[in-house]
Amino acid sequence: MIAILATGGTFDKQYNELAGALAFKDTHVPEMLRLGRCRVDVEVRQLMMIDSLEMTDADRGTVADACLSAAESRIVITHGTDTMVDTAKAIAARTIDKTIVLTGAMVPYAFGSSDGLFNLGSALSFAQILPAGVYIAMNGRAFPWDNVRKNRETGVFEGL
Amino acid sequence: MIAILATGGTFDKQYNELAGALAFKDTHVPEMLRLGRCRVDVEVRQLMMIDSLEMTDADRGTVADACLSAAESRIVITHGTDTMVDTAKAIAARTIDKTIVLTGAMVPYAFGSSDGLFNLGSALSFAQILPAGVYIAMNGRAFPWDNVRKNRETGVFEGL
Amino acid sequence: MIAILATGGTFDKQYNELAGALAFKDTHVPEMLRLGRCRVDVEVRQLMMIDSLEMTDADRGTVADACLSAAESRIVITHGTDTMVDTAKAIAARTIDKTIVLTGAMVPYAFGSSDGLFNLGSALSFAQILPAGVYIAMNGRAFPWDNVRKNRETGVFEGL
Amino acid sequence: MIAILATGGTFDKQYNELAGALAFKDTHVPEMLRLGRCRVDVEVRQLMMIDSLEMTDADRGTVADACLSAAESRIVITHGTDTMVDTAKAIAARTIDKTIVLTGAMVPYAFGSSDGLFNLGSALSFAQILPAGVYIAMNGRAFPWDNVRKNRETGVFEGL
Repeated sequence: MIAILATGGTFDKQYNELAGALAFKDTHVPEMLRLGRCRVDVEVRQLMMIDSLEMTDADRGTVADACLSAAESRIVITHGTDTMVDTAKAIAARTIDKTIVLTGAMVPYAFGSSDGLFNLGSALSFAQILPAGVYIAMNGRAFPWDNVRKNRETGVFEGL
Repeated sequence: MIAILATGGTFDKQYNELAGALAFKDTHVPEMLRLGRCRVDVEVRQLMMIDSLEMTDADRGTVADACLSAAESRIVITHGTDTMVDTAKAIAARTIDKTIVLTGAMVPYAFGSSDGLFNLGSALSFAQILPAGVYIAMNGRAFPWDNVRKNRETGVFEGL
Repeated sequence: MIAILATGGTFDKQYNELAGALAFKDTHVPEMLRLGRCRVDVEVRQLMMIDSLEMTDADRGTVADACLSAAESRIVITHGTDTMVDTAKAIAARTIDKTIVLTGAMVPYAFGSSDGLFNLGSALSFAQILPAGVYIAMNGRAFPWDNVRKNRETGVFEGL
Repeated sequence: MIAILATGGTFDKQYNELAGALAFKDTHVPEMLRLGRCRVDVEVRQLMMIDSLEMTDADRGTVADACLSAAESRIVITHGTDTMVDTAKAIAARTIDKTIVLTGAMVPYAFGSSDGLFNLGSALSFAQILPAGVYIAMNGRAFPWDNVRKNRETGVFEGL
């Protein structure tokens, strides 16, 4: 059993056609799991729906608390890419004996050409196999939380 | 370094608009890796482009040979779902000391609502972590080759 | 008020993932009208759901009858491209005093890269303005039924 | 021969994945014409690539000038929906003896679920048939410039 904690980020941005702007409604994770014909036993919990640039320390605390209190020992977190590493660090600081994998997307799932479905398949797979620890799954790879950064020029996650 | 061996299957079917029928051209794997912003070090080899219902024993031999002769010790094979288990069995019979993961799709990648991108992300992730052996990665899960079947009524892969 | 008569064709083909083959279920026209935010007053009637290569003279009679008996004086017919001209001819033979526009698609709407939405927007627009007569709307153009053929090498409709 | 003048608007917005925001690059009109298998003789000119809320009187003058100086007597203009009616008015004030049809989209073409392709098919068709005048083609309908408004609560264009 895997818990999927949705926090928002580009992954879940959609286009509000009346406002002509990007916005959040509900997470697309359940729809993506259906599209991927996923049969992993998962439970999706929507913790918040925000841009990760607006995530506060209190928000990161909420995410870490949710990891701690979850009955599941394997957790996937969908998250904005800009501060994904910061949240991974905040979770790791709590020394939780679980496999926790953060993932996200560079392009919103709702926009056709997204990497979100690839990343979700990747994160769910890593979460089933990797030993306890906090990881970031992006670009098809899994990085330990303390050996990864987002290269802001290329938009790619890389080791330090 | 991971080798991706493309053999065809639903994964790579496309719509031939002059014939009004499904057909194969080249594999979509490179385009899918771009869409997934994949930065895993991979090499894609197109072994054949056929429906897995038309795959002969000789074809399965070609796939097993390609696994054996590959310089890479981690291999992903894209394959039609109907006889994926048979090919996994044929490869396992050769006792190759590599991690070999077969995957595919229930809906062609070219048709918008495909599970292919999810499955490719999943298979590439399993292939990086699982120990030597032959596996099938479908529906977000990884099955050892000798404990899996495709349920033809539901289209879902399940343990025996 | 415009009647939309759906008969099938590539327009409405979808992928049956259990059979691994193209198939018809219900017409996609209502979904396409929603996507196009269409506010033209229309009524959609599904006459049949077949490949136009399998359309018999009796089927063409059914389509012509439906044109004749429709309360609406403006009609759009979605149809397979292969015998669209034959059906247009069969309708024209009945000298119906209405504006009747046949359209279709080279790629199924369900397959992402379809011309169907473009053609539906085009056909509905021509149907609102053109005088009584039988027309084919494809490739952004409207052709009178007796001055059009499908070029089978290019897949494009052209004047004689 | 029809001139297509691209000015930007939601139609042409795309997602800048490094900035995590909506942005303009080049117009998608040529790609959309390819997707629609359009064989109408058109020439696409990109006048500007801006949000119509930022369009100035000078910009509207540029659009009207381009209509006036175009060799073609039939013109389609792609435009943001928010001030499309204002630009139509500015063009009509110049009494140009041509058929000029403005269209746009409520959702960016690049985002999968767009009405853009439907609207482009519609606008190009109306532009071929309607007499000289300035029109707005949205929601499958064509409105004279002086009898149309965008209902901001529903996002739908309607007569006055």
